[in-house]
Amino acid sequence: MKYLITGCNGFVAGHYLEFLATSGKSPKVLGVGRNHSPVVPAALDFSYVLVDLVDAEAIASLMAKEKPDYVIHLAAFSSVGASWKDPVACFSNNTNIFLNIIDAVRRVSCETRVLSVGSSEQYGDQGLEILPISEDAELKPISPYAAARCGQEILSKVYAAAYDVDIVMTRSFNHIGQRQTAQFVVSYFASQFAMAEREGKKSFRLQTGDCDVIRDFVDVRDVVLAYESILDRAETGSLYNVCSGVGRSLRVVIQHLSEITGIKAEICPSKNLLRPAENRTVVGARDAIFGDLGWEPTIAFDHSLREIMEYWRRNKG
Amino acid sequence: MKYLITGCNGFVAGHYLEFLATSGKSPKVLGVGRNHSPVVPAALDFSYVLVDLVDAEAIASLMAKEKPDYVIHLAAFSSVGASWKDPVACFSNNTNIFLNIIDAVRRVSCETRVLSVGSSEQYGDQGLEILPISEDAELKPISPYAAARCGQEILSKVYAAAYDVDIVMTRSFNHIGQRQTAQFVVSYFASQFAMAEREGKKSFRLQTGDCDVIRDFVDVRDVVLAYESILDRAETGSLYNVCSGVGRSLRVVIQHLSEITGIKAEICPSKNLLRPAENRTVVGARDAIFGDLGWEPTIAFDHSLREIMEYWRRNKG
Repeated sequence: MKYLITGCNGFVAGHYLEFLATSGKSPKVLGVGRNHSPVVPAALDFSYVLVDLVDAEAIASLMAKEKPDYVIHLAAFSSVGASWKDPVACFSNNTNIFLNIIDAVRRVSCETRVLSVGSSEQYGDQGLEILPISEDAELKPISPYAAARCGQEILSKVYAAAYDVDIVMTRSFNHIGQRQTAQFVVSYFASQFAMAEREGKKSFRLQTGDCDVIRDFVDVRDVVLAYESILDRAETGSLYNVCSGVGRSLRVVIQHLSEITGIKAEICPSKNLLRPAENRTVVGARDAIFGDLGWEPTIAFDHSLREIMEYWRRNKG
Repeated sequence: MKYLITGCNGFVAGHYLEFLATSGKSPKVLGVGRNHSPVVPAALDFSYVLVDLVDAEAIASLMAKEKPDYVIHLAAFSSVGASWKDPVACFSNNTNIFLNIIDAVRRVSCETRVLSVGSSEQYGDQGLEILPISEDAELKPISPYAAARCGQEILSKVYAAAYDVDIVMTRSFNHIGQRQTAQFVVSYFASQFAMAEREGKKSFRLQTGDCDVIRDFVDVRDVVLAYESILDRAETGSLYNVCSGVGRSLRVVIQHLSEITGIKAEICPSKNLLRPAENRTVVGARDAIFGDLGWEPTIAFDHSLREIMEYWRRNKG
C-alpha cells in the first residue's frame, strides 16, 4: 500500500504520519512538499519529494512514476481569515492545485484513490432550523476560502462521475490539536493563555474576533481516523461531513481554557480580527459517516483542549 | 461612459462592438486581448491594450489606470467539447482570469460594474419535470466547462456580498450567429451544409455527436441586448438566465438547415464527437429577465439560421 501525502509539512499531515507509523498497515509513504522534508517517525517507510503543486506537469510526472494507491491531499491554503486578505492565492492554492492533482490521475489513468478534503465553511450561513447540517444542505459559501473549497468539490464530482477518477470527498469541520499554528482560533487562544501563565498573570486582555460564533471542533487525530475510514471503505464520489456534531461558541472555548489554567480572560473584540462576513453557527450532522462507515469521534473536547494548552506551555507562540 | 471589454477578438465581443458603435451611447471602449487588435466599426471611440488576463498584477494596474464604468468580461474558454480535452486550461481561462478581474476591482476600489457571464451548462442534467429551468434550480454541472463557470459564479457571489464589488451575473444559453467558429455546433452544421452546397451535392454525410440533445438557442445580438439591460438596470449580485425559452434538438436544427439549403444530411454519429457526459435537455425560463428588465429575444431562430448559412457560404470553414 502506497500513500502520497501532499502538504506533508502541515498540521494534519504530521498527525497522519504518526498514525501511519503505528497503524500496523506498514505503508510506503511518499511525502510531497515545497520545503524541507518533515521529521517523521522512525518506524515509517518514508520518502520525500519537492514538488510545487502549482506545476501541473511536475505532478503528472510524479503520478506516472509513483502510481500511489492513495493520495491524501492535505496541501491547502486553509485559513479563512487569511483568505479574506489574499483571495487569489487562496483560490490557486486550494482549487487549482487540487485540479492539477486529479487531472494528473486522469491523464495517467492510474487506479489511485484521491481524498478531496473540503470544509464546513462551504455550508455558509445556514438557518438555525436546519442544524445540525447534513451533507445535502444547500451550500452558501460566503468567504473566498469557502468559494475555493466549493470549486474543488464541483471539480471532484465532475472528475468522479465523467472521467471515473476515484475521488472520495469530505467537508471537514474545525480541526484542533497540538502543533496547529496560532493562525487558527483555538491554538491562538491557548497560546495567549500560555503567555499569560508564563507572565504569572491572574487575568489578561484577550484580543478576539466575534466570540459568539459557534463552531464544531474535532480533534485532528479523529479527523485522521475519519479519513482512513473514508479511504478504505467509502464509495467513489461519496462525500461525508467530518465533525463532532456538537456546537461550541468561541466564548465557551475561552471559558474552558480559563478553567484549565485558572486565568481569567477579558474578551476584547478587535476590529483587525473581524471579517467582512462570518458564518454564525456551523454544526455538522455525523449520521452519514457513522451509518455508512462507523466513524465517530473518540477524543473528548476537554481532553483535546488540555493537550493543546500543554503544547503551548512548551512552545512559545 | 467607459467600457472595458475582455476577449475583444471573440465572437460575442465583435457583435458587442457593432452594437456599441450604433447604439447612440457613444461610449469610450477599451478592448483587452492577447492578440492583435480587432477591426472595429469606424464610428467607435476604441482603443486596445494587450494584457494576458492570467497576469493578476497587469490587470490590477490596468484597472487602476482606466477605472472603467463597465467591465464586459467576454474572454473565456467557452467550448464544452474542448473542456473535456483540456480541463486545466479551461478552468484557468475561465475561473482564474475572472477572479483576477474581480480581485483587481476589489483592490482598486473602483465603482466598476462587472458582467460575469455564466452558462446554461451549469444547470447540468435537470429532470424534464422542472423545464424550463429557472435561476433557482439546483446546479448539477457535469463537464469541466460547467464546473469552471460554477466556480466563477460562486466567486462572483462572495465578492458581491462580502466585498461589495458591483457584479451582475448571467447564465447564458447557447449563442448562435455569424462569425461563430465551427467549434460550436450550429456553426459546424452550417459550415458542412455550405461545403456540400459548394460541391453541388444533393445529400451528404454529416458527422455528429448526440443529435437528440435539446438546447436553447439565442441570437448573439439578442444576447448583447440582454447584457446591456443587465448592466444598465440589474441590481448588484443579481443573476439572470439569458435564453429564448424554446428547446430545439440538434436533429431539428439539421432539418431546418436542410430546408434552407435543399440538401439532405445523413446523420452519422461519430465516436470522436461524443462526450464523456452530456446534458440531455437544457431549456431556460426567461420570466425573471423579462419581468425585471423587460428583455426578450427579438430575432427568430429561422432568421438567425438563414444568416448563419449566408455567412458560411461566404466563408469556407
